[in-house]
Amino acid sequence: MRTLNVDLGARSYPIYIGENLLSTNKFLRNHINDKKIVIVTNETVAPLYLEKLANILNPIKPLKIILPDGEQYKTLETIESIFTKLLENRCARDTTVIALGGGVVGDITGFAAACYQRGIDFIQVPTTLLSQVDSSVGGKTGVNHPLGKNMIGAFYQPKCVLADISTLHTLPERELSAGLAEVIKYGLIADKKFFDWLKNNISALLKLDSEAISYAVETSCQCKADIVASDEQEKSGRRALLNLGHTFGHAIETGMGYGVWLHGEAVGCGMVLAAKFSQRLGWITEDTVEEIIQLVSAAKLPTQLPKELSANKILELMSIDKKVKDGKLYLVLLNNIGDATLTCDYDHNLLNSMLKDLHHSA
Amino acid sequence: MRTLNVDLGARSYPIYIGENLLSTNKFLRNHINDKKIVIVTNETVAPLYLEKLANILNPIKPLKIILPDGEQYKTLETIESIFTKLLENRCARDTTVIALGGGVVGDITGFAAACYQRGIDFIQVPTTLLSQVDSSVGGKTGVNHPLGKNMIGAFYQPKCVLADISTLHTLPERELSAGLAEVIKYGLIADKKFFDWLKNNISALLKLDSEAISYAVETSCQCKADIVASDEQEKSGRRALLNLGHTFGHAIETGMGYGVWLHGEAVGCGMVLAAKFSQRLGWITEDTVEEIIQLVSAAKLPTQLPKELSANKILELMSIDKKVKDGKLYLVLLNNIGDATLTCDYDHNLLNSMLKDLHHSA
Repeated sequence: MRTLNVDLGARSYPIYIGENLLSTNKFLRNHINDKKIVIVTNETVAPLYLEKLANILNPIKPLKIILPDGEQYKTLETIESIFTKLLENRCARDTTVIALGGGVVGDITGFAAACYQRGIDFIQVPTTLLSQVDSSVGGKTGVNHPLGKNMIGAFYQPKCVLADISTLHTLPERELSAGLAEVIKYGLIADKKFFDWLKNNISALLKLDSEAISYAVETSCQCKADIVASDEQEKSGRRALLNLGHTFGHAIETGMGYGVWLHGEAVGCGMVLAAKFSQRLGWITEDTVEEIIQLVSAAKLPTQLPKELSANKILELMSIDKKVKDGKLYLVLLNNIGDATLTCDYDHNLLNSMLKDLHHSA
Repeated sequence: MRTLNVDLGARSYPIYIGENLLSTNKFLRNHINDKKIVIVTNETVAPLYLEKLANILNPIKPLKIILPDGEQYKTLETIESIFTKLLENRCARDTTVIALGGGVVGDITGFAAACYQRGIDFIQVPTTLLSQVDSSVGGKTGVNHPLGKNMIGAFYQPKCVLADISTLHTLPERELSAGLAEVIKYGLIADKKFFDWLKNNISALLKLDSEAISYAVETSCQCKADIVASDEQEKSGRRALLNLGHTFGHAIETGMGYGVWLHGEAVGCGMVLAAKFSQRLGWITEDTVEEIIQLVSAAKLPTQLPKELSANKILELMSIDKKVKDGKLYLVLLNNIGDATLTCDYDHNLLNSMLKDLHHSA
């Protein structure tokens, strides 16, 4: 078991990472006292881990809210249904909400906690690789709008994150791969050594080798915690590096309809697009792009644009991304493996022509 | 013209108070630069002040969003409709939203700004007395839920507040009185001298005497700014004093249906109930209660519970108030005029019996 710390002054919190953490109340205990507890989870996770989590909270009897499973439910309507449940059960400001599940459950629950009575405590218990290495850490919460992904939300930090890597054994293969997309991202933006380690250990990770998974989750969380501590609200541009592949990826997710591609799949493909565009700008070599494609592909992630989306459609969807400033679309691009930059200093026509080329060859 | 400052470290902002402030860009200019501007207002305020505000922003052409007028539209649905407009118009994170109108417009707009792309800049241009002295200052934003008022929201500070007292000349009398409820509140919770001044100047205020209104708005904003600076997120209990009359008042508003009683009317009656309950607890004398009733009544505000609401209904609605903690309902009560306390140390049966008595005599 290892404890990392996200250093945010009064909003600092620990991330507990290890096996079988859902078998003990040792970690949650310090963060909940005798408060009223609400667990928010979904139909897929509930049969697997809801009773386990409820049991370790004993003698507190938590209120349980079970959402339908899927990105398509990451909406304001779902948020409103949570508020209704909380109000019907007279949950006051001293309630703590626990998000049990993947990124969608965490994002929805965190945003509901941020807004309910202008903010109540919440805890993240991520049960997917993607949420353990990325979405449960850093306080980005929110829901989608039909016109754009994650367009509605709040920066709102949890009181702690409990990442029990044993839960990954119930994860579908496709979601494991989706999580690996974010793991690869940390190597690409900040840690060439980790990227090289991933190349050598990708099959151990796909087999859920315990030591390899522990190392990958810890390294990823540490990377994210460091970046978030240096730029909590994405103001200096440093935090924005975490969005490598995400501007392309969000456009793919939104364009295909939420839930058709998994977020991690879209990010995997998005990172390849970012690498290819970096190459077109002359920033990295074709060999480097190939190295990245190899790893993304070895993680069983898509590396090609979906045929259904035209270049124009993708550009249109990218133009309402949160990275637009002064009318310019900022992209995270690569100077090298382990070295990323946020920039709007590129030829927009080049982006256009690359997407057209890739669409034709898709 | 006078400038007050709300002192909140990095989130500090000025409040500009004076006549004809909507005739110049002198104040807004510093806060908007060349950014994209969106003005959110309602159908009642738009014909009066929308063009005036849009003109002083020239050469920027603001996007205009006109909401229906009324507390019943202070909902998540309205928030979602604002997000749709912002996304359709490709508003990015560097957009500034200006709330032009009363408390409802300010609360909705502030909350929309807090959540859109996890937070964009916003400015308050309050055009009612209530919003000038209360809701536009201090960063409480949010919407109602069918089960409770202001149950969904965020603490989110504006970049500045522009209170043009000339706009009060178009305010219906009933709304002027509603605003005076909050003005009286400041006297009751923190400033006996101001309370006495109000007794002597209530008719000048009702006649919109410019000097009297200026003094009342400034004194109220200063009182609120001081309290907010000492307890931004209502954690120490100090800020909660601003809720004198509000727990009773919210129950009346929710119970009658949003929009039937104005917020200030419910607060006026709520302050009388808080005073009467303080008397039942032996904290203040009957004469003091009478003095308070006299001033509330002179401000043309209701002082009696609506017949439609039973004691049980009011207690039920009060029990889901945000001031519930550890299952106890905290109330703001009076030790004296100018001296209020947040407490749960009272006999709940006494509260019950008082509401029953008042209901029977209503």
